[in-house]
Amino acid sequence: MEIFQQQITLRARSRGFHLITEEIEDGLSAIGHWEAGICQVFIQHTSASLTLNENADPTVRMDFETYFNKAVPENDPNYRHDYEGPDDMPAHIKSSLMGVSVTIPIRNGQLALGTWQGIYLCEHRNHGGSRRLLVTAWGN
Amino acid sequence: MEIFQQQITLRARSRGFHLITEEIEDGLSAIGHWEAGICQVFIQHTSASLTLNENADPTVRMDFETYFNKAVPENDPNYRHDYEGPDDMPAHIKSSLMGVSVTIPIRNGQLALGTWQGIYLCEHRNHGGSRRLLVTAWGN
Amino acid sequence: MEIFQQQITLRARSRGFHLITEEIEDGLSAIGHWEAGICQVFIQHTSASLTLNENADPTVRMDFETYFNKAVPENDPNYRHDYEGPDDMPAHIKSSLMGVSVTIPIRNGQLALGTWQGIYLCEHRNHGGSRRLLVTAWGN
Repeated sequence: MEIFQQQITLRARSRGFHLITEEIEDGLSAIGHWEAGICQVFIQHTSASLTLNENADPTVRMDFETYFNKAVPENDPNYRHDYEGPDDMPAHIKSSLMGVSVTIPIRNGQLALGTWQGIYLCEHRNHGGSRRLLVTAWGN
Repeated sequence: MEIFQQQITLRARSRGFHLITEEIEDGLSAIGHWEAGICQVFIQHTSASLTLNENADPTVRMDFETYFNKAVPENDPNYRHDYEGPDDMPAHIKSSLMGVSVTIPIRNGQLALGTWQGIYLCEHRNHGGSRRLLVTAWGN
Repeated sequence: MEIFQQQITLRARSRGFHLITEEIEDGLSAIGHWEAGICQVFIQHTSASLTLNENADPTVRMDFETYFNKAVPENDPNYRHDYEGPDDMPAHIKSSLMGVSVTIPIRNGQLALGTWQGIYLCEHRNHGGSRRLLVTAWGN
């Protein structure tokens, strides 16, 4: 079994949910000859996250932002960790609700995503800046 | 290290939370001689999910459905993505909250689940139909 | 590629969010010569969970407890599974919202966590007792 690892730096995105499937797939030429494997994408931050969801209609990604802003409100007077601004603590919570990695099977040399599945960067800060990913894939 | 991959099609289930541990284990005879490994179960959809939780009392699974229907309400007037019905956008959100894969250690030839842990299919659509899983296991 | 597996028993913690990065890293001397790999930490329970989040300011962990107690309330009259007390069903739900494993890349012989990332034990029961983890790492 082989293993492959690559760092990717994503350019700064606005707060919200962004499709990054192509940026991940572009770095995966090494898996083209594998019959079966796994690819893990990991974000090395605590105020952004990764998830898999619908890859076609941009309104789905807008509705994610709408939902999470209601489900994890800013300015809760009970938050103690607020010195980086009202988006700080909610960003940490959203990051753990979604998780900081996605793990995708590889089959016949490519990511075995379902027809409608894409990889989302979930940027939970107002000004999160560029984000560091580590992509690790193993298989044969 | 060996790697093994298998597609499984789950029959259509009603909306709610369903225990599928046995269906997964039935396809895992190849791991019987491994001392240590990992099994990933991945669902290739964006409106269903997988999780691990209590395997004994069916009321736990009913309470999951009750909770998630309150936590992710239908018919939010702010949702834009609603053309597949009121269960559409909430299903996408629930899918990302739970996640589309579970990753379970293998020890001494079997899934190293805790005593009370089982694998749930979380069907978030009213009529989701059959669901495609990809099971990937590696170890030795 | 090598694979390594170890059981860890965590001492009982109070309800809340606890940093356990050092306890995990202490058991990982076997990965010191790997260039690349993955480490999975799995908790064999259904009323506790694991996540990655901010490792410096303890008020973040307090705010997690505040948030999750509001987001997953106790004593919902619609819960059917309540015979182990009011913290029982909410603990199951919180466990699935956060997830029972974290999967962390290994790079140059150590966990490739971001600067601010630490491993949290999320103890959702009032008296959860000691907790069993299974750590599996693979790489070369």
